[in-house]
Amino acid sequence: MKDVFGSIEAGGTKFVCAVGLGPEQYVSETFPTTSPRETINKAIDFFHHHNKKRNLKAIGIGTFGPVDLIKDSATYGYITTTPKFNWENTNMLSPFQDTFKIPIAIETDVNIAALGEYTWGDTKSLSNFLYLTIGTGIGGAGMINGSFLQGDKHPEMGHVFLPKLKNDNFDGGCPYHNDRCFEGLVSGTSIGLRCGVKASEIKEADEVWELVAEYISLALVNYIYILAPQKIIIGGGVMKQKHLFSRVRSNVVKHLNGYNHSIINQENLDDYICPPSLNENSGILGGLALAKMAYIEKDS
Amino acid sequence: MKDVFGSIEAGGTKFVCAVGLGPEQYVSETFPTTSPRETINKAIDFFHHHNKKRNLKAIGIGTFGPVDLIKDSATYGYITTTPKFNWENTNMLSPFQDTFKIPIAIETDVNIAALGEYTWGDTKSLSNFLYLTIGTGIGGAGMINGSFLQGDKHPEMGHVFLPKLKNDNFDGGCPYHNDRCFEGLVSGTSIGLRCGVKASEIKEADEVWELVAEYISLALVNYIYILAPQKIIIGGGVMKQKHLFSRVRSNVVKHLNGYNHSIINQENLDDYICPPSLNENSGILGGLALAKMAYIEKDS
Repeated sequence: MKDVFGSIEAGGTKFVCAVGLGPEQYVSETFPTTSPRETINKAIDFFHHHNKKRNLKAIGIGTFGPVDLIKDSATYGYITTTPKFNWENTNMLSPFQDTFKIPIAIETDVNIAALGEYTWGDTKSLSNFLYLTIGTGIGGAGMINGSFLQGDKHPEMGHVFLPKLKNDNFDGGCPYHNDRCFEGLVSGTSIGLRCGVKASEIKEADEVWELVAEYISLALVNYIYILAPQKIIIGGGVMKQKHLFSRVRSNVVKHLNGYNHSIINQENLDDYICPPSLNENSGILGGLALAKMAYIEKDS
Repeated sequence: MKDVFGSIEAGGTKFVCAVGLGPEQYVSETFPTTSPRETINKAIDFFHHHNKKRNLKAIGIGTFGPVDLIKDSATYGYITTTPKFNWENTNMLSPFQDTFKIPIAIETDVNIAALGEYTWGDTKSLSNFLYLTIGTGIGGAGMINGSFLQGDKHPEMGHVFLPKLKNDNFDGGCPYHNDRCFEGLVSGTSIGLRCGVKASEIKEADEVWELVAEYISLALVNYIYILAPQKIIIGGGVMKQKHLFSRVRSNVVKHLNGYNHSIINQENLDDYICPPSLNENSGILGGLALAKMAYIEKDS
């Protein structure tokens, strides 16, 4: 039987599960996120099914969070303080460990997306890049010398505080920081609250996108001045509005105002701030890469 | 003759030079920063003098900037776009290389301060901490797994954009970002512009300090959410106002508002946001550590 790795991209709206070895060789399945028990059981069923014909060696999980990633913590692998109904204090690790008795690795959803890009995308040669996802929520992963940027806890880049625009009277959608942080201003959820309709249903001509682009660019200025990344990849549902990229790029240049311009110039701007090269699949492929790392680590 | 290392902490106001091996064994001299030629020659004289009785093996330089730290760049080791009169495009490396024919390493001033703390301070066990200096300007160094956080260029953490306080009518002191960035709001220079007197002459009871503490805490929130540091050390002239520390700590807790609270709690707060354990000497000692690294690297 062929050896394969497993991957789970656990999102607040949907779960994607996959088995395979990389971009050219994998199968995946997507189902909606319902209760923790039902959703996790569906994932287990997926791997059971594929384990019959293949030899599953390890699983890499990328999950929404916040998630406890401190390895010696009593709640390692648990989703912690999420506002998502019923998912607080969910153990994402042990159901898979107990069932399959193989190495199971866990990271944030945005970290595995960054790892997917690092492993199979356009960032292989970079020592420092940022992967940002702007969807229902906003998250960011710093990949520094091939490792995830992390302290005792993972970063929460979506909660960076930003100057509020003078013409913006929105009260903000972040339950912790209201209108002070990036997520509270223009996550998919906050755009929906602002406009009274889903972000995905708002037309390109709507003036809200100018404001969204402005806040994204202000956040990028902060990531640039703090992290000095060599590239900024932006994925997530909100960025399906492709017109945002050119607006964000020119706003970033305007705000930097010539300071730190050695990183950013007109020539490399499209390449510096760009969508994921693996499109929608950075996360699920990153999970396969994470599984492979966990498998190798087990034997070392 | 005894082997020693050399260190230069090159600031916009003063240069500190030292030879020695560490905190218990070094001599130093301080002189004002005048023209590049005069100041660099004084530093060379200092090392010549001490080289007579000791054997100088390498020099570590920490300089104000921005400075070009890309090793294969034609202007590696040059101060680049500084507003400091006469110092733009100053080669900080070759005068020492040409004179002493020993390894000379260069970093930002704040990076060597972080290295000093990492080598001889309270941060040895930490995989991720932040060293911030709030003086004439504001700079920050991230030390991640023992390496300086850096991309193609070093971070410019002092230029992080912050929400402006509603009661603050100051136009800002940053030549690039006016009142949008941390440095433009409350660097020593900006505090001086705000108040019409030097920051060092403003009394503890003055209400400006409440505002300064508020902006520092907003910047710290951004560093915390982006970098997830395990400790934040704050040095620099402005922080000689020791009362700022307790104000900043409580403001940070207020702004985080319970999100990401696993890093920060009342028990460890004094230890989490704190002054340098090497006091004024983090930089000059970090230069000795940098020199030692350059010496070892040469032989490897």
